[in-house]
Amino acid sequence: MSFLNDRLSIELPLIQAGMAGGITTPQLVAAAAEEGALGTIGAGYMGASQLKDDIQRVKQLTDKPFAVNLFAVNLESFSNEIGRMQQFLNGFRSKLEIGHGTDFVKVNDYLHEKVHVVLEEDIRVVSTAFGVLSSFLIQRLKENDVTLIGMATILDEARQLEDAGYDAVVAQGYEAGGHRGTFDINRYPDGSNIGLHVLAQELMDHLTIPVIAAGGIHNKKQVDAFLEMGADAVQVGTKFLVAKEAGTNAAYRRALMKADTGSTKITKVFSGRPARAIRNQFVREVEGSEIAPLPFPIQNQMTKDIRGAGKEFAIADMQSLWAGQGVGAIHEEESAADIIASLVGSNASGAAIESGDDNGLSNGSGR
Amino acid sequence: MSFLNDRLSIELPLIQAGMAGGITTPQLVAAAAEEGALGTIGAGYMGASQLKDDIQRVKQLTDKPFAVNLFAVNLESFSNEIGRMQQFLNGFRSKLEIGHGTDFVKVNDYLHEKVHVVLEEDIRVVSTAFGVLSSFLIQRLKENDVTLIGMATILDEARQLEDAGYDAVVAQGYEAGGHRGTFDINRYPDGSNIGLHVLAQELMDHLTIPVIAAGGIHNKKQVDAFLEMGADAVQVGTKFLVAKEAGTNAAYRRALMKADTGSTKITKVFSGRPARAIRNQFVREVEGSEIAPLPFPIQNQMTKDIRGAGKEFAIADMQSLWAGQGVGAIHEEESAADIIASLVGSNASGAAIESGDDNGLSNGSGR
Repeated sequence: MSFLNDRLSIELPLIQAGMAGGITTPQLVAAAAEEGALGTIGAGYMGASQLKDDIQRVKQLTDKPFAVNLFAVNLESFSNEIGRMQQFLNGFRSKLEIGHGTDFVKVNDYLHEKVHVVLEEDIRVVSTAFGVLSSFLIQRLKENDVTLIGMATILDEARQLEDAGYDAVVAQGYEAGGHRGTFDINRYPDGSNIGLHVLAQELMDHLTIPVIAAGGIHNKKQVDAFLEMGADAVQVGTKFLVAKEAGTNAAYRRALMKADTGSTKITKVFSGRPARAIRNQFVREVEGSEIAPLPFPIQNQMTKDIRGAGKEFAIADMQSLWAGQGVGAIHEEESAADIIASLVGSNASGAAIESGDDNGLSNGSGR
Repeated sequence: MSFLNDRLSIELPLIQAGMAGGITTPQLVAAAAEEGALGTIGAGYMGASQLKDDIQRVKQLTDKPFAVNLFAVNLESFSNEIGRMQQFLNGFRSKLEIGHGTDFVKVNDYLHEKVHVVLEEDIRVVSTAFGVLSSFLIQRLKENDVTLIGMATILDEARQLEDAGYDAVVAQGYEAGGHRGTFDINRYPDGSNIGLHVLAQELMDHLTIPVIAAGGIHNKKQVDAFLEMGADAVQVGTKFLVAKEAGTNAAYRRALMKADTGSTKITKVFSGRPARAIRNQFVREVEGSEIAPLPFPIQNQMTKDIRGAGKEFAIADMQSLWAGQGVGAIHEEESAADIIASLVGSNASGAAIESGDDNGLSNGSGR
């Protein structure tokens, strides 16, 4: 029995990751929930009213519980020291025939407002990335019986989450797509990059709260192996990017289906934070320029219009093609239901839940 | 039944990795063999007569089969364009009070001579790193019924090994300590770095020969998980560095026992090839100098006297402290027998061998 089942009556030991940027449509989240997994709205970068809309649309599609993923840091930020990078990026803008960038950048992620929406809408699970929510926000969420799932990339982060009162922790392996969840980028400029099987094992050895394995997982044999190791559940992102219900644009989908296991790298060029993406022209040229990316979230804001044009004009080379190392095994679009079946097919889910229950030792039934 | 058992009557699905540089003493290799694992002499950088001596000493200690690990590339190399790096390294030499470096560097790893010794001594298993042996050497070894195990860090390399007639392939995950096995360093300057559970799964999906999982594995739960996933066996290196029988020097041992999971990084400063080591003063200073390391094996030869002085004077900061990400779980010296028991304890080995046999599905007995 996984803690997801125990606390939330989620049938499968599987979380659809809360990827930000319009990927996790209400249709995707609801489909994951209907199939018995924990669907997640990726609410990073999202406005509070958009989040409210999305939550209400998911509720129209399913009455199962689902999660909202938030960035656990206050992204309010302002910078006007952006000259060299902005100038370099204007080269891309000229080619894309879009307007040049401004002289300053301002960002606000409206974390408190989004927590307010979560409570108003009676969301049962909040997952977070990049840090630990403030004790004020944790208290508000816990008073309202919200289950809290944090993300850690190294033992020290996991301990911070446990100490702060989180209910479970996602071990984000080096293999994972998108942003490294690393809390302190000054300490780990390239991300704290531990292979998933080492990290998951270490967190299980040292924490008392449940551990969820994430990063590069794309099939049932891997899921079974991590449950066997003692993980409470697994979280999958990249594979859901090609779900028919996902908001992934067509050029991005094609790039995912063409990529192989060695096609991705961890780079700061898109956002200023290390993140795993498919190597494309934007990555190569910005890295080749040797102009250092600005800090997160400034760099993210600065590249937003270029990435937006990449989406609109279907140019994969000008987008952030987030992908985990499992991308090499993804060759076709599928329904969320088929993806979930391929991860925790009928005889897997039974064995899996048992396996989670008795600490990695299966009783052999159903296998 | 793993292929090790089937072909060589090796009882356990476990290989003691063939680490170079005096680590794999005859005592360590023989102890691993006696316990039922495949012990391996790490013969990279070793002279042919030293290899012959070591083989004969292992044979005095055990009558079980064991392996010899070779670099599958001809390292014969000469360079006199070493000025800036040599000058920088002379700074370390001055502090260590050892002689300054020469103006040229010459290297020869005597691969053909060592293959001759292997055949003369009737060694049953040869494992290789960094590439594929020439068809001439493969033919000589196969004519003499030697089992060939290659190491791959990415699917393309594994396919080259399979096509060349290798009998099994070690999937070397990103987590692994020491040199990345990457064949083409020009294509992957930082190593082809795929997390083990993704790489192992991909090789199992695409190869017909058995796959052995390596990188960061340090306990029975991980071993069981990889066997569950379908690996034929696992290979372990770092944990054997602190075996009482290993040739690891005292300062290196202490550094291993103090390190945590985040203490290692992949660096080219020691040898010119990407390799995972504990961050120490040498790594920080050479990386901080921004003088590019010379190509392998020139850089390796250039740093050899400094690393040698580091060993002799018990200065961990001047050694190549190779270690995988599993190093965080290593806290004490143990006998090889205890290490092997902790990896594949009695009820594990039974389940393990069954698991390998029926493609990752256990029949539940013995668990």
